Amino acid sequence: MTLTLHGYFRSSASWRVRIALNLKGLDYDSRARHLLRGEQRAEDYLTLNPQGFVPSLSLADGAVLTQSLAICEYLEEAYPQTPILPRESVERARVRAFAQVIASDIHPIQNLKILKRLRHLGLDAEQAHQWARAIISEGFDACAALLAKDGHGPFCFGNSPTLADICLIPQLANARRFGVDLKWDRLLEVEAHCSALPAFSRAAPENQPDAE
Amino acid sequence: MTLTLHGYFRSSASWRVRIALNLKGLDYDSRARHLLRGEQRAEDYLTLNPQGFVPSLSLADGAVLTQSLAICEYLEEAYPQTPILPRESVERARVRAFAQVIASDIHPIQNLKILKRLRHLGLDAEQAHQWARAIISEGFDACAALLAKDGHGPFCFGNSPTLADICLIPQLANARRFGVDLKWDRLLEVEAHCSALPAFSRAAPENQPDAE
Repeated sequence: MTLTLHGYFRSSASWRVRIALNLKGLDYDSRARHLLRGEQRAEDYLTLNPQGFVPSLSLADGAVLTQSLAICEYLEEAYPQTPILPRESVERARVRAFAQVIASDIHPIQNLKILKRLRHLGLDAEQAHQWARAIISEGFDACAALLAKDGHGPFCFGNSPTLADICLIPQLANARRFGVDLKWDRLLEVEAHCSALPAFSRAAPENQPDAE
Repeated sequence: MTLTLHGYFRSSASWRVRIALNLKGLDYDSRARHLLRGEQRAEDYLTLNPQGFVPSLSLADGAVLTQSLAICEYLEEAYPQTPILPRESVERARVRAFAQVIASDIHPIQNLKILKRLRHLGLDAEQAHQWARAIISEGFDACAALLAKDGHGPFCFGNSPTLADICLIPQLANARRFGVDLKWDRLLEVEAHCSALPAFSRAAPENQPDAE
């Protein structure tokens, strides 16, 4: 069974899926789609993923899955080994809510596409970076509050990594890129625990074949 | 068992959860949190949901769930009657990906909070509405393409409503509010099928106790 991940080394959403694949011990082929060169808008890619976003995951039978969280949920259902969601429904809802704060309320509002749109409206580079920092900081305030309320360590929610950690790690890297003051100790502690795991370190952008 | 939905009649994300609750035939109490009056930032609400967003769902045992898609997934697990996800994993992934296009790539980028932020940066009302229209149009192009590729009617994905339809209907209402030219026939056909169901019509903003 061959899985092919169409992604970009620096894309947070691709990074999430790489972590999930690694945690589940799944082999996959990597197919880089260089975002800055617009390769995600190439015709052959649009037939796979008409949204023109990365990542996409091609399955052995030719089916193509899109949207990182939907792909992670698929991997959890198809490969239940090393679960990335807790067993109990309320706990699962908490992990998914945390993931959704990052995947809906932070990342899509501060990604390259949106910052470009802001530049087109006349904002300068510093204003665009300020926008990104504000969105990330407000989102991380929410993440930290959710963990303070319901999340026990060492990972976001308990003793093993879940979809919450999978979303958090790439978002922390984005935060550093924009110079966000990382004042959330609990989030950084989670990051330290994750970084010690090969599934996370092998998924990092600098360890991808298309890294520059 | 008493479920309490903390929401706002006009909030798309609250609307999604109302549809899911109705489809599953679940009774719930409604607790309005008036967004324009800032009631989602009141201290009693922040203890329930530290992100200060609607909706939240309080369960009988006092647990509080947040983020509309995480709440819908919880309802699907805890109340499997009238499923809102298909049975097969690849089909589930397609429904979730479609939902995610709306919940991550459209709605959070055109909601009131972001438009306010744009106004603070000096954009006028018309520029903010143009932004919203562009985001919604690009997102709906993706939605329509995903359905053309893998979704058979009359609903988004098959003969019964799923999480995809649950996300689509409130987003179409948002599109109308901003004057988007609704050129996606398939999306409008889905809407007509959904509107004929009491679970959808009862969830509409104008039928909520806090409607103005």
